[in-house]
Amino acid sequence: METSGENRESVITDSRIDADDSRHVVIGIIKETYDSRVALVPSALPKLQKAGIRVLIESGAGLNASYDDSSYVKQGSEIVSREELLSKADVIVSVKKADEKILASLRTGQVLIGLLQPQIDTALVRSLVAKGVTAVSLDNINRRLSRAQTMDVLSSQANIAGYKSVLVAANEFGRYFPMLITAAGTAKPAAVLVLGAGVAGLQAMGTAKRLGAIVSGYDVRPETKAEVISVGAKFIELGDISGSGEGGYARALSDEELAKQQESLNKHLSRQDVIITTAQVPGRKPPLLVTEEAIKLLKPGSVIVDIAASSLGGNVAFSKPNETVITENNVKIIGAPDLPSSMAASASDAFSNNLTSLLIHMTKEGVLNIDTEDEVQQGVVICHNGKITNQAISEKLAQAEEE
Amino acid sequence: METSGENRESVITDSRIDADDSRHVVIGIIKETYDSRVALVPSALPKLQKAGIRVLIESGAGLNASYDDSSYVKQGSEIVSREELLSKADVIVSVKKADEKILASLRTGQVLIGLLQPQIDTALVRSLVAKGVTAVSLDNINRRLSRAQTMDVLSSQANIAGYKSVLVAANEFGRYFPMLITAAGTAKPAAVLVLGAGVAGLQAMGTAKRLGAIVSGYDVRPETKAEVISVGAKFIELGDISGSGEGGYARALSDEELAKQQESLNKHLSRQDVIITTAQVPGRKPPLLVTEEAIKLLKPGSVIVDIAASSLGGNVAFSKPNETVITENNVKIIGAPDLPSSMAASASDAFSNNLTSLLIHMTKEGVLNIDTEDEVQQGVVICHNGKITNQAISEKLAQAEEE
Repeated sequence: METSGENRESVITDSRIDADDSRHVVIGIIKETYDSRVALVPSALPKLQKAGIRVLIESGAGLNASYDDSSYVKQGSEIVSREELLSKADVIVSVKKADEKILASLRTGQVLIGLLQPQIDTALVRSLVAKGVTAVSLDNINRRLSRAQTMDVLSSQANIAGYKSVLVAANEFGRYFPMLITAAGTAKPAAVLVLGAGVAGLQAMGTAKRLGAIVSGYDVRPETKAEVISVGAKFIELGDISGSGEGGYARALSDEELAKQQESLNKHLSRQDVIITTAQVPGRKPPLLVTEEAIKLLKPGSVIVDIAASSLGGNVAFSKPNETVITENNVKIIGAPDLPSSMAASASDAFSNNLTSLLIHMTKEGVLNIDTEDEVQQGVVICHNGKITNQAISEKLAQAEEE
Repeated sequence: METSGENRESVITDSRIDADDSRHVVIGIIKETYDSRVALVPSALPKLQKAGIRVLIESGAGLNASYDDSSYVKQGSEIVSREELLSKADVIVSVKKADEKILASLRTGQVLIGLLQPQIDTALVRSLVAKGVTAVSLDNINRRLSRAQTMDVLSSQANIAGYKSVLVAANEFGRYFPMLITAAGTAKPAAVLVLGAGVAGLQAMGTAKRLGAIVSGYDVRPETKAEVISVGAKFIELGDISGSGEGGYARALSDEELAKQQESLNKHLSRQDVIITTAQVPGRKPPLLVTEEAIKLLKPGSVIVDIAASSLGGNVAFSKPNETVITENNVKIIGAPDLPSSMAASASDAFSNNLTSLLIHMTKEGVLNIDTEDEVQQGVVICHNGKITNQAISEKLAQAEEE
């Protein structure tokens, strides 16, 4: 009985779309090559269909996020092969940048949506412009616009990374996080320091606090103090250097400022059992916060999780993306840039909610309406009709050409 | 200055022991072959020395528990090779059963202390009796004696296992444990069920609760209800079957009782995201609680951690010790019998405190005093002077011979 009810529902949904099929936008969900997440989860489909959007999904795309093909079919989606998806979809959605083969197959007028990293991957932007593909990059959501907050994938994924970083650290750490008083003696609580009080940092502080650790937080932006305290952590102050930058991100500090800060920071670092680093500056090399010198001061058995670890370097000396390095003094340094992918179900749910908000915002009567006068779209639409429409990216490209 | 102060202290300590060196018992700490823990940590040494006990340690024995050789030297211990240790020590202490080579080298009158599992390893008991080795097994602490509670290594290590099982589960689970309300939507809290409300189970419930999950607990002993509730979990009742047994452990249930219970339990299991099983009956095969049928009812992406996983089987169908099995319906089953070893620093601290209590209890004026009339020693001393002194083990051996 239940099954036939579900079938009826999907038939109704389909017939509603079929009524004027040719006009309605078709979205295709790609199976990620290098990530366990999926850009849209089944619960998003009714909302999209209501907005007149039809959804195709590549077979197996949701599997690693615990959503099998049948869960999409139940919500009215059609399962297709990659070839069919690329040929039928007007809009290709993915979490990470789609792979080379997909990019090569895109055609003029098709729309590509995902974390495209246009600030870093200028070659991709050029090729999409040349092809006349419309690129919508979710890295570029203007988080200062309150109506864009529901679309902010960087925040939702940073939340996952912050939470998961603490679990990874606690799992690797040889001791309890909470204080425990038992017949076998008293276990001291772990001292956890989180560097960076953005979304990831605050969630890490809150999670470490939940687990019973003594938590401190630090950020170059002194105005984050109240937030740090609100999640139960102590705010560390290193002097009177402010690193507040534009767009709610931290700004890069000068060398002198960094040296002065470093000396004071090292004292705090040396007292910790666990350090979690989350300091990222968009489109730039992450700042080195935990130096080789600081690592030497740490106790044997200490654990560092570097969320900012990247091929350009991370917040921690020796940290390498997706590797665990153990130093001579027995400190474990875990480079963890891909934590959201390791918690793919919740990460995909949040990503999907963000993307659904954006898609509905961009759709009018079932048709995708690219409008670069729109405040939200100004940030995310990188190129359209063979032209770069985003000013920051345009400047970046000009700068890259000069170099 | 600090270093010379430490040296002075150890010199004083040494001279105190040297005063009557020949009488004083010498304890040797073995480097474990199959475990990251160490039986005694540096902080135990001053207490032991005060009781007139001299401590030798095999080089590197504490390294995996974050204690290097120098941390033992600072507390007045001497670092020796394994050969020297085996020849000089009156008492050999280890966490797990020492390996074959060590066992082969033991001599008459030497004392072996550790988790010897005499209920299972009857061959070991026979060989120790034949050699005239005194065996003290920490599995056999009488936990009903209040003065033996500080010596109860099974409890202290179960506490670690319970805590760590939740971290392992949360780390493998694709979703958040806590409920989170963010701009990207609301994440539901995870439903966690812990089977078994002993030390490990209660600590698992408490830890899952800390992390924000909705926690339920179940035990065949209905009198555990108050404890389950006290750590923030809901107590599941399956009917009126009591499985309370002797010595604070669960008793084995009959087949009919089990079938009735199973049906009711399966309903509860099917609603969970995470299941942690901790039901062990000493010296016996663990009861199968999560059957193949129950696993089929679980949601894709569910995670099970089976602390009772063993070579004899575990609490969960398909579970294998130290392996992760993924079922057809995408349920992850983690066989985790060695969690204390994975959190070696805290586990060793607790083990060391327990062992120190026992050693001090057994030592009089610097000499080990084996006294099988003593209530505490009745439990732990398995054989002495070529005879089995423990009644339960004696019966077990007689029974094994009959079979």
